[in-house]
Amino acid sequence: MTEQPHRIDTVRPLRASQVAHWDLEADVVVAGYGIAGVCAAIEAARAGARVLIVERTGGWGGAASLAGGFVYLGGGTPLQRALGFDDTPENMAAFLTAALGPGVDTAKIEDYCAGSVEHYDWLVDCGVPFKETFWGEPGWEPPHDEGLMYSGGENAAPFLDIATPAPRGHVPALADKKTGERGGGYMLMKPLADTVSELGVDVEYDTRIRRLIVDDTDRVVGILATRYGKPVHIRAARGVVLATGSFAYDPEMIDRYTPRLSGRPGAAIEEHDGIGIRLAQALGAELAHMDASEVAVFGDPQMMARGILVNGRGQRYVTEDTYPGRIGQATLLQNDNQAFLVIDEAALEEALATETATPFFRFPPKWVAESVAELEAEMGLPEQTLQTTVDVYNRNAEQGADPLLGKKAEWLRPLTPPLAGYDLRGCTAGFTLGGLRTDLDSRVLHVSGEPIAGLYAAGRCTSGLCAYGYVSGASLGDGSFYGRRAGKAAATD
Amino acid sequence: MTEQPHRIDTVRPLRASQVAHWDLEADVVVAGYGIAGVCAAIEAARAGARVLIVERTGGWGGAASLAGGFVYLGGGTPLQRALGFDDTPENMAAFLTAALGPGVDTAKIEDYCAGSVEHYDWLVDCGVPFKETFWGEPGWEPPHDEGLMYSGGENAAPFLDIATPAPRGHVPALADKKTGERGGGYMLMKPLADTVSELGVDVEYDTRIRRLIVDDTDRVVGILATRYGKPVHIRAARGVVLATGSFAYDPEMIDRYTPRLSGRPGAAIEEHDGIGIRLAQALGAELAHMDASEVAVFGDPQMMARGILVNGRGQRYVTEDTYPGRIGQATLLQNDNQAFLVIDEAALEEALATETATPFFRFPPKWVAESVAELEAEMGLPEQTLQTTVDVYNRNAEQGADPLLGKKAEWLRPLTPPLAGYDLRGCTAGFTLGGLRTDLDSRVLHVSGEPIAGLYAAGRCTSGLCAYGYVSGASLGDGSFYGRRAGKAAATD
Repeated sequence: MTEQPHRIDTVRPLRASQVAHWDLEADVVVAGYGIAGVCAAIEAARAGARVLIVERTGGWGGAASLAGGFVYLGGGTPLQRALGFDDTPENMAAFLTAALGPGVDTAKIEDYCAGSVEHYDWLVDCGVPFKETFWGEPGWEPPHDEGLMYSGGENAAPFLDIATPAPRGHVPALADKKTGERGGGYMLMKPLADTVSELGVDVEYDTRIRRLIVDDTDRVVGILATRYGKPVHIRAARGVVLATGSFAYDPEMIDRYTPRLSGRPGAAIEEHDGIGIRLAQALGAELAHMDASEVAVFGDPQMMARGILVNGRGQRYVTEDTYPGRIGQATLLQNDNQAFLVIDEAALEEALATETATPFFRFPPKWVAESVAELEAEMGLPEQTLQTTVDVYNRNAEQGADPLLGKKAEWLRPLTPPLAGYDLRGCTAGFTLGGLRTDLDSRVLHVSGEPIAGLYAAGRCTSGLCAYGYVSGASLGDGSFYGRRAGKAAATD
Repeated sequence: MTEQPHRIDTVRPLRASQVAHWDLEADVVVAGYGIAGVCAAIEAARAGARVLIVERTGGWGGAASLAGGFVYLGGGTPLQRALGFDDTPENMAAFLTAALGPGVDTAKIEDYCAGSVEHYDWLVDCGVPFKETFWGEPGWEPPHDEGLMYSGGENAAPFLDIATPAPRGHVPALADKKTGERGGGYMLMKPLADTVSELGVDVEYDTRIRRLIVDDTDRVVGILATRYGKPVHIRAARGVVLATGSFAYDPEMIDRYTPRLSGRPGAAIEEHDGIGIRLAQALGAELAHMDASEVAVFGDPQMMARGILVNGRGQRYVTEDTYPGRIGQATLLQNDNQAFLVIDEAALEEALATETATPFFRFPPKWVAESVAELEAEMGLPEQTLQTTVDVYNRNAEQGADPLLGKKAEWLRPLTPPLAGYDLRGCTAGFTLGGLRTDLDSRVLHVSGEPIAGLYAAGRCTSGLCAYGYVSGASLGDGSFYGRRAGKAAATD
């Protein structure tokens, strides 16, 4: 036992034998009060454990409460059924396997889909409100408080031929507009945080996890945190749950694993510095899919669906009526972050007359041209590239077909000048999806394949459902689902 | 101290206090007798250390001796200068930074380029033969014993505008044709293995590393290996060098990190099961660029340069006269493994009259067609896609230009039917480039950023020069270069 203060500038574990005094103690210690942490805390408390949440900021919420709030659920949830959509766990799994791969964790996909209806009921039981309304238009999010929406390209090529399309983006109802500007993520977190309070869970805010504490058998038995710079030693009698988020804001990890996201973090919070991943790695934890990333493109889906997207060679490369996050990934990861949107005047007017959740993406076009050739030249594309692309598109659109990419007939209409051109080159941002490898009980797996005793993780510090692709709601979805598993498993450890 | 035999089915470290008897002992123990291991052994022995190489198979060589043998060297090597090519370390670094990124380890690139001429001299001093002849044609390798070749697209778009083109693929002379079928990789390994023998380095064949052995301070002090199933405890007084190769043949790691390579391993040997990576991870080692992969496409470069390559949408996507490994990456990673080669009769005849190192890629075309429209239909491409691609290509080729992709004028000639079509869909294979993060002395870095005491690594179990892109010679290049560093550093630990 040492009297020296322990280092807080290393991610190496601290030996319990070095801890002279435990400042706090609980059965289950949850690091991070976002979506994964809140769900872990609820389930651990309900299982009879004394739970302590340690949160680095001054309040609950994490990235979740700033998010749009999609929770990806299906397999026949009450909301899906009430709105007339058929779905089964198998159908949902078929879609997710195709859309989130290559390389998905098949067991996790099947498990998640099989448990999805129960998970919906659990959220509702905790007080999460979903309105029985459906938003069927292209968009990043519903513009109002609609509760259900396509959020992964389920009803677009190629997936509509792989699985029966069903919307699975479940959005907690927005707060009363009068009370403020709270989004769906807040409305997801609020009732869950209220549930945590009702359960008598302790929360220490402004308290930041620094190191894991292990006993002589390498079992995790606590954490070293800091509060206003002072060390706090916290004993976890049963387990520690890491729920500390992604590494989107750690530039070195980004360079090492997802360099295409370098300088373009999006939809995550600055606290997402990868600390949970690094702490577990120091114990020999295995990782997975560290290159996977969500990618947003700064385009309005109502406009994109009605136009065509071309890459830096003037070629179409993604069906424009799909989930816009899929467009973002195809742009950044497969087309060197080069994209142009071309739309004609009539389609643009029609698009601008629709509702959208992203009016800020409806900026004026960079170019307006009287012909495709003129637009092509203004965009700096090689001669005849955009022209032939539009020729082929128009010829097929007249027949109501898109043999190149399978855009649905409802969005196909020949582009007729004058044309507007949008410069979307470099207009992407994203967050990371890779992280700790966990089992179905959210136990952090050692590289040997065995669990690391006493250590659990959920949310974006883990590799969840997504191996490469993304759907909106996957992060709040697997974060909440496997957060619950982590809490349950830790409580009974 | 226990009398029980230690488990060999776990990658967890073994405590030295559990080792009753050391069967073998050396200052520096090198695991793996491929290119990284042989160079580590030479430098460690020259620095005065007693060295023991432990090799799992019955002989030296590893993946290296089966490889084509390119070593990527430049900055003005004697061979480059003798053949009239100007190069500098800065020029080389500018190229590699562009070609191997995004996300290259800048310090490693600069270090490697700065030391490249010295490294060439060192290899020659060890007896590695390079002939003063240059092969300037497109190809995977030189067809004869030429010593120098472009091996990374240095003289193709876009790199020829980023750095002054210089060939850097240095190929050890092939053995006398009379003596057999030995390739450049063998001619690299043979003199190095002879050097090892001359230095009196001990080698234990048929001896497979299973676990690292650590002391109570977590310093690596030896390895547990097996020989014919029997455990062998080997003490390393100064350090252990991991030189165990990639994870191309571990299906679970492939699924977890590089799923696009699943089922298509290439140019690596079955012993490349990621063991060195996993052993170090169990000690908290950091990884980097686990998604990076070399990708070969089964096309003959002489044919590809003279034709056009189109993806599954009939669009050109990569300059056909570049390094074929770059074509492979663009095909697998960015175009869903869909590629067709289109070439006209005259160009095909011209190509087939050239020499090539890959005659097995000169199989007959799948389709022969009297028109582009006919070929397009036979390939199953949407109408007008291939036709417009060929129209635009031909129009520009007549002017000696390729504004779309920058193919050099020497390869530009309008495609004139009859046309041959090759189906290259799914025709790729590759090996992994990600692995342990190491510093410039080849010390394995812990996730804390500090080195893991007593542990070194080089070759494809580490993340070397390549973060995403690849050039032929990068693996034997950084494996030999940082293998030397590992041996030197371990010997003086």
